Amino acid sequence: MRPSGRAADALRSVTLEPGFAKYAEGSCFVRFGDTHVLCTASVDERVPSWLRGQGRGWVTAEYGMLPRATHSRTDREAARGKQSGRTQEIQRLIGRSLRSVVDLKAMGEMQIKVDCDVIQADGGTRTASITGAWVALHLAFQKLVSLGVMTAVPMHDQVAAISCGIVDGQAVLDLDYAEDSTAQADANFVLTAKGLIVEVQTTAEEAPFAEDQLTAMMALAKKGVAELAATQRAAVGLAE
Amino acid sequence: MRPSGRAADALRSVTLEPGFAKYAEGSCFVRFGDTHVLCTASVDERVPSWLRGQGRGWVTAEYGMLPRATHSRTDREAARGKQSGRTQEIQRLIGRSLRSVVDLKAMGEMQIKVDCDVIQADGGTRTASITGAWVALHLAFQKLVSLGVMTAVPMHDQVAAISCGIVDGQAVLDLDYAEDSTAQADANFVLTAKGLIVEVQTTAEEAPFAEDQLTAMMALAKKGVAELAATQRAAVGLAE
Amino acid sequence: MRPSGRAADALRSVTLEPGFAKYAEGSCFVRFGDTHVLCTASVDERVPSWLRGQGRGWVTAEYGMLPRATHSRTDREAARGKQSGRTQEIQRLIGRSLRSVVDLKAMGEMQIKVDCDVIQADGGTRTASITGAWVALHLAFQKLVSLGVMTAVPMHDQVAAISCGIVDGQAVLDLDYAEDSTAQADANFVLTAKGLIVEVQTTAEEAPFAEDQLTAMMALAKKGVAELAATQRAAVGLAE
Amino acid sequence: MRPSGRAADALRSVTLEPGFAKYAEGSCFVRFGDTHVLCTASVDERVPSWLRGQGRGWVTAEYGMLPRATHSRTDREAARGKQSGRTQEIQRLIGRSLRSVVDLKAMGEMQIKVDCDVIQADGGTRTASITGAWVALHLAFQKLVSLGVMTAVPMHDQVAAISCGIVDGQAVLDLDYAEDSTAQADANFVLTAKGLIVEVQTTAEEAPFAEDQLTAMMALAKKGVAELAATQRAAVGLAE
Amino acid sequence: MRPSGRAADALRSVTLEPGFAKYAEGSCFVRFGDTHVLCTASVDERVPSWLRGQGRGWVTAEYGMLPRATHSRTDREAARGKQSGRTQEIQRLIGRSLRSVVDLKAMGEMQIKVDCDVIQADGGTRTASITGAWVALHLAFQKLVSLGVMTAVPMHDQVAAISCGIVDGQAVLDLDYAEDSTAQADANFVLTAKGLIVEVQTTAEEAPFAEDQLTAMMALAKKGVAELAATQRAAVGLAE
Amino acid sequence: MRPSGRAADALRSVTLEPGFAKYAEGSCFVRFGDTHVLCTASVDERVPSWLRGQGRGWVTAEYGMLPRATHSRTDREAARGKQSGRTQEIQRLIGRSLRSVVDLKAMGEMQIKVDCDVIQADGGTRTASITGAWVALHLAFQKLVSLGVMTAVPMHDQVAAISCGIVDGQAVLDLDYAEDSTAQADANFVLTAKGLIVEVQTTAEEAPFAEDQLTAMMALAKKGVAELAATQRAAVGLAE
Repeated sequence: MRPSGRAADALRSVTLEPGFAKYAEGSCFVRFGDTHVLCTASVDERVPSWLRGQGRGWVTAEYGMLPRATHSRTDREAARGKQSGRTQEIQRLIGRSLRSVVDLKAMGEMQIKVDCDVIQADGGTRTASITGAWVALHLAFQKLVSLGVMTAVPMHDQVAAISCGIVDGQAVLDLDYAEDSTAQADANFVLTAKGLIVEVQTTAEEAPFAEDQLTAMMALAKKGVAELAATQRAAVGLAE
Repeated sequence: MRPSGRAADALRSVTLEPGFAKYAEGSCFVRFGDTHVLCTASVDERVPSWLRGQGRGWVTAEYGMLPRATHSRTDREAARGKQSGRTQEIQRLIGRSLRSVVDLKAMGEMQIKVDCDVIQADGGTRTASITGAWVALHLAFQKLVSLGVMTAVPMHDQVAAISCGIVDGQAVLDLDYAEDSTAQADANFVLTAKGLIVEVQTTAEEAPFAEDQLTAMMALAKKGVAELAATQRAAVGLAE
Repeated sequence: MRPSGRAADALRSVTLEPGFAKYAEGSCFVRFGDTHVLCTASVDERVPSWLRGQGRGWVTAEYGMLPRATHSRTDREAARGKQSGRTQEIQRLIGRSLRSVVDLKAMGEMQIKVDCDVIQADGGTRTASITGAWVALHLAFQKLVSLGVMTAVPMHDQVAAISCGIVDGQAVLDLDYAEDSTAQADANFVLTAKGLIVEVQTTAEEAPFAEDQLTAMMALAKKGVAELAATQRAAVGLAE
Repeated sequence: MRPSGRAADALRSVTLEPGFAKYAEGSCFVRFGDTHVLCTASVDERVPSWLRGQGRGWVTAEYGMLPRATHSRTDREAARGKQSGRTQEIQRLIGRSLRSVVDLKAMGEMQIKVDCDVIQADGGTRTASITGAWVALHLAFQKLVSLGVMTAVPMHDQVAAISCGIVDGQAVLDLDYAEDSTAQADANFVLTAKGLIVEVQTTAEEAPFAEDQLTAMMALAKKGVAELAATQRAAVGLAE
Repeated sequence: MRPSGRAADALRSVTLEPGFAKYAEGSCFVRFGDTHVLCTASVDERVPSWLRGQGRGWVTAEYGMLPRATHSRTDREAARGKQSGRTQEIQRLIGRSLRSVVDLKAMGEMQIKVDCDVIQADGGTRTASITGAWVALHLAFQKLVSLGVMTAVPMHDQVAAISCGIVDGQAVLDLDYAEDSTAQADANFVLTAKGLIVEVQTTAEEAPFAEDQLTAMMALAKKGVAELAATQRAAVGLAE
Repeated sequence: MRPSGRAADALRSVTLEPGFAKYAEGSCFVRFGDTHVLCTASVDERVPSWLRGQGRGWVTAEYGMLPRATHSRTDREAARGKQSGRTQEIQRLIGRSLRSVVDLKAMGEMQIKVDCDVIQADGGTRTASITGAWVALHLAFQKLVSLGVMTAVPMHDQVAAISCGIVDGQAVLDLDYAEDSTAQADANFVLTAKGLIVEVQTTAEEAPFAEDQLTAMMALAKKGVAELAATQRAAVGLAE
């Protein structure tokens, strides 16, 4: 029995609230249970300098966490004067994940920056961020289409993410903070709507583990991402 | 006629939502129209080093803004590696304002850090922050009282803040971003529930102005803060 | 009786020594009693990037303090790797104050940087800085006129600043460090030669205070700034 | 046919040269073909502050690259004033990998810092680093045993790492830089001598890929790590 | 003929004004012609951490330059967020020079920090700094003696510094900025009152030069330092 | 008798291994006994901004040390976020030394960056760096000649460096770490192949010393540099 009473293959309650931020070109407030993240997509006419003049676009991401999003307060990164290694790792992951489903050539020379800011953290902030970031990005592209800047949304697939873990020897889906602290292993899966792999990152927490446990987590993740992808489609107004 | 259709002495719609953040000892989500700020109060057993061993407490504040809280995206301070002068000015102001109504001796040796994070910005973020921060701080003290850490809330007054400006030659209350951009002068008033002065900061934007205009703004501010103070009392459960 | 023996409305001995620095386009060594500040104005052909190509000028200020200007040594900001919040607050105030009396369009596309470096600090360094900075800036403009770069000094008024405080319940003018430490409230007034308001910043130190005390301090400030303005005119060679 | 002429399941020429650095408690110069990394293990009596007084040890890692280790020069991180996100990601991975096979309690209260500095880079620097770091760490523990500081090497397994990729649709082992640039996907496997999983990180470079390709890469990685583990045992003088 | 009309072996006009700063334990305003440096010595009860508990003292120095000390404005190091390599080189040189004549054991466990701040720069700022720093330090020790903290000034010699250069093939003493820019070689000599060597640093500017030119500069330096040492003795009240 | 058994005028065993780094345009692995430095020269088409459009070249240097090059581990500068004063002093010295023998005009508008990274440190790292850097730079120029970018190596002389010291009252050549710690004085000489002076830096460690000891060290340095220069010629393939 899981602490939350959920079945091994059950997601937490997930909501994707589009248009949460008034000024951003696209935005989504994502909730995975008590983990809440605000994702905004901002259009910038300038691309990074190494990309200038090539007629291609770029999508990048930044990640942050409010100091008291967590159980005890964490120091503010702006006050410490630098982003932690963990923050950089996560925002690089979000950026790569989004770019894997965007047609950068079709975008034309522009940049979209997606900000994922954790308002409350109960485990799985990076997977919630990726899932919500795709929605914010899609909405920003829709807006550019409606403004006539481009003719179609330049994304060829959906990307979403979920965590899995081995708890008491069993593979379970979508860990909250309590489970995360006791897991023998955990893994983050970034998959497409069809279940193809974009990124997999798995770590043994207590002891190295066998390949069949990775296989079991992968099966759960495919199920979870299929559910998330349906929720994403609803949030951006795509037909089932 | 103001852009928002408000009377010269009318506040925007103000709400103070207590307990918004699940983990903080005290919290308040404050809305001044489209300006939204999350205030959290975090108890820390350690005081700053220059205060150790004196048996007195300390209250401090930090301020931040999500990158796309604003009409166009602002760079993330954590990514730039430092807090701007504006940010530091505001968080120093919030801290001084709160300490003006706290009995630091009665607190005992502990520190409370109040974080004010702007989720959406339409003018007046510093005054909304101070107003909400007082609520978050009061709730944190209430929690410490309920836990038996202290016997009474060590605050001898309420503090709240509001902006005023001179627009088209007339003093008006609680500027939004549109008015703020066209004001000839603006002023931030940090006052107690009784209308005493904690801080006044006024700046000529276009041209120096006469003392009677400061007096006119002060009168509006007193009215505005009296209304805010009543809303604060309701938010923390104090009798009218 | 004030510690210095001065009357409540008396300034300290004030001198404004023009041309102190050999290489700067304009300079002024200002003394408010034992507070000594060197102000230099440096002409730069480049304006900040956000202003380029608009044909307008810019005036900005930086503030610093020698490590042993103060009673006990303060760490060098260059060694600590950043400017404190206090430093940034002050230099932003000096810059805004100067710009309030400069006609930026008439300057043409150029920038003047005014450096205010505190050689010795006995209270009131920011007000001394503003008062001396105006002189340094005026002299730099005079030099540009004499070189034929512009036809007239593009300043439409004088700006000067003075502090006031409430000490033992009474309003007094131009606090030195000893008085500043015991004041119930203090205020910095940045006014024009005619007594119009450019900036007012007031803070309750011990307890919130009533509006009539602000009014009393304002009256003293007007008198003080009128005297400073006369000294400024003498320093730059303007007729009374 | 691979650019290097290797079979799909063939490692590059691998050497692990123990004792390369004269002063370090343990060291290893690792070569994976033209990728060369110097790994040193340094014993420090102090543990990080959050671990003090618990009687447990800690192992951590830092990673760096000489500016001209690469085909074109990269800026020196010390000169830019911070470590890149990539550097932090890699050094965190090395540290976690090493800790997964160390008995931190048996170490007693001390810290070992393992530095992995890339002298020449031709792809796979993080996997070479982990493989060599284990050797350097083992040698440092052997030295502490020989000095009587501990009675046995507190490591319960070996850890080594190798990269795999999908090139032209086929899974291949141990990518060099030329292959890495053209791979459809790549993956880094950190495994124990017995083939258990410590970390797996896989990324789609061109297009999302199917699970069976991950399975194919995993099979290659197990073979590769088994060979690396044998080379490690020889380097530290362990029986086959 | 030198630009300044001085003889090859003539110093600029040198003054050492003791007690310039009101609050510092020791201070000296040093002028080498148009090069002006304020040197202050501040007593600190704490020594650096690596020296604690050994009963020995420490003397260190910091160096800075006002932004418009120079012909054209230099960026403020505090604003740029770090001290330049040149600044660090100079302050390390000043510190070593002072420590060469101080008996650190006789000081007892305390630290003296000497700040050398260049108010105006016309070449030779580091040599003026060292010469004035010795005076400020001696005066601080005198004050500690007068307070009964120590029984005698713990300095066994005087240290002063002067630059020399090869201009138009001839060795000359005490270069100003104009000469410095055209010198074929320059050298800084830090010598004791008796002409012993503390530091020599010489650099070929245009072309490598022969040893006899170093010898010629050394002879000038000895003459110059002897004169500076006499001025130092007068400034601190030592008998000739 | 010296700790190493060497005669007072004997260098340590010196080797200069050209072409050590696979990708750099020029490289040299230099060994002065147990001091080992990797020098690489990287060609960059861009010159620093202050030199653009003048058709002249530039040569600059950077210096670093692996954390465990030394007897006990030193913190990594990239992790601390800045280069130490010592590092900056050394890399500025290397750059000046190289430029003293390069014809910058003949280079044309390009920059060569020479990186000197200390792999193992037993005293004399800066002199080994300069000696090896000249070889790396010469090889890079040879490569540019062979590619037809320039017609001849634009260097008019050789530069090499060696340390000397006063140990037990006697001048000795090429100090290792053990001697360096006990020397009464030390000096670094940067000389040309013909024994002309490029830079001399000497420091009294224990007590100021007389000029004849500098003269004695200079004589040893000339002998040492003559030997180093011969080894350099062999390394780059120049006739004796």
